[in-house]
Amino acid sequence: MLVYGRNVALEVLKNPKKVQKVILQQGFDDKKILSLLENSKFPVITKSKKEIDHLADGVHQGIILYVRDYQYFTLSDVMVDASSFIVMLDHIEDPHNFGAIIRTCEAAGVDFIIIPKDRQVQVNATVMKTSVGTLDEMKIVQVANLASTIDYLKDHGYWVVGTALEDSVDYRSIDYSGKVVLVIGNEGSGISKLVRKKCDYIAKIPMYGTTNSLNASVASGIMIYEVIRNRK
Amino acid sequence: MLVYGRNVALEVLKNPKKVQKVILQQGFDDKKILSLLENSKFPVITKSKKEIDHLADGVHQGIILYVRDYQYFTLSDVMVDASSFIVMLDHIEDPHNFGAIIRTCEAAGVDFIIIPKDRQVQVNATVMKTSVGTLDEMKIVQVANLASTIDYLKDHGYWVVGTALEDSVDYRSIDYSGKVVLVIGNEGSGISKLVRKKCDYIAKIPMYGTTNSLNASVASGIMIYEVIRNRK
Repeated sequence: MLVYGRNVALEVLKNPKKVQKVILQQGFDDKKILSLLENSKFPVITKSKKEIDHLADGVHQGIILYVRDYQYFTLSDVMVDASSFIVMLDHIEDPHNFGAIIRTCEAAGVDFIIIPKDRQVQVNATVMKTSVGTLDEMKIVQVANLASTIDYLKDHGYWVVGTALEDSVDYRSIDYSGKVVLVIGNEGSGISKLVRKKCDYIAKIPMYGTTNSLNASVASGIMIYEVIRNRK
Repeated sequence: MLVYGRNVALEVLKNPKKVQKVILQQGFDDKKILSLLENSKFPVITKSKKEIDHLADGVHQGIILYVRDYQYFTLSDVMVDASSFIVMLDHIEDPHNFGAIIRTCEAAGVDFIIIPKDRQVQVNATVMKTSVGTLDEMKIVQVANLASTIDYLKDHGYWVVGTALEDSVDYRSIDYSGKVVLVIGNEGSGISKLVRKKCDYIAKIPMYGTTNSLNASVASGIMIYEVIRNRK
């Protein structure tokens, strides 16, 4: 995975084990980054502005890092009896949303995140950037099928809470004290039909204006901290 | 202001009064948009891909709209005795955050938003896009000086709540039932020193992981809905 820009570089170089190679533009002079690159175990190569422009398809600020791809977990890797709060993403598309949700989950102490393999943004450079250093701390499980994963989790004592407007109850009226899976729906179409059918509760965040939905990462934040409120 | 892309076009064309001109790429064939452009009162001009690429500095999907700039309000325009919940942005830089905060404020029924004139992202195309149609419903006040604006609001009976980690209390322990100004700090540096000194309460959202901050729009969402919880 290629990531670029000085802020991300600073973040990534704090944990340099996953860095494979760094490309600097001729004349790159950010002292903080250069000092982090001293005695590095990976190659640091200097290239012309033209060459580096060609490699990056965004604003690189003179630095490109080749970083090992995120290694997803399987459900059996991470499922332990003590796991009690799981966030499941039902086809989130926007990498900014995915990154912000990872950051919120890490802050709130969510045990792990489940994402589907298809029609869902995967961990890419923008996700890494917007999760500002929390990606290494957060376990992300990739599954082929959300519905059958929910069945499995229900068999293990989890309650499943989705969010939607119709046929829903106020999000503050639900008891989140047990083992909980919180399902966050797609930005445009919300929770998919089959997943929704399997939810034990459908929660609604009340709205008083003309809009009938919040940004997916904002809604996730409100819901995640509502679950936390019931527990810690 | 230039905005582009099919989703934004659909959103903007719902309220076509502010549209000044639309440029379409030769061969543009989105039927939904074309039907919205029928009988329009503004000019619709067709240009070659090359000309349109030159106008847009992002992915335009064959459509560019010239939209009237957002008209900011002054404090005296919007201050009425019934105003009781104001959100103040203390130098937010990221347009995605600003847009998502506008959307949350509109959903939650915030009376108006106050932003500083300088070192704060203003309403631009990305803000318009990420606020998904709520911009027209939300009053945004531009002020020269946040600290003196807080003094003015305090004289009018408002309590001022900021967010930070240090010298703070749990955000759930504050009484938000009166007239409240919620201050959201900058993404990197938080609330500015002078503004912080003027806050009656500093609220902290508890975190249990390695990160010590949330995305600014996520933190805003959690705080805004906490204020709402105390009131509606």
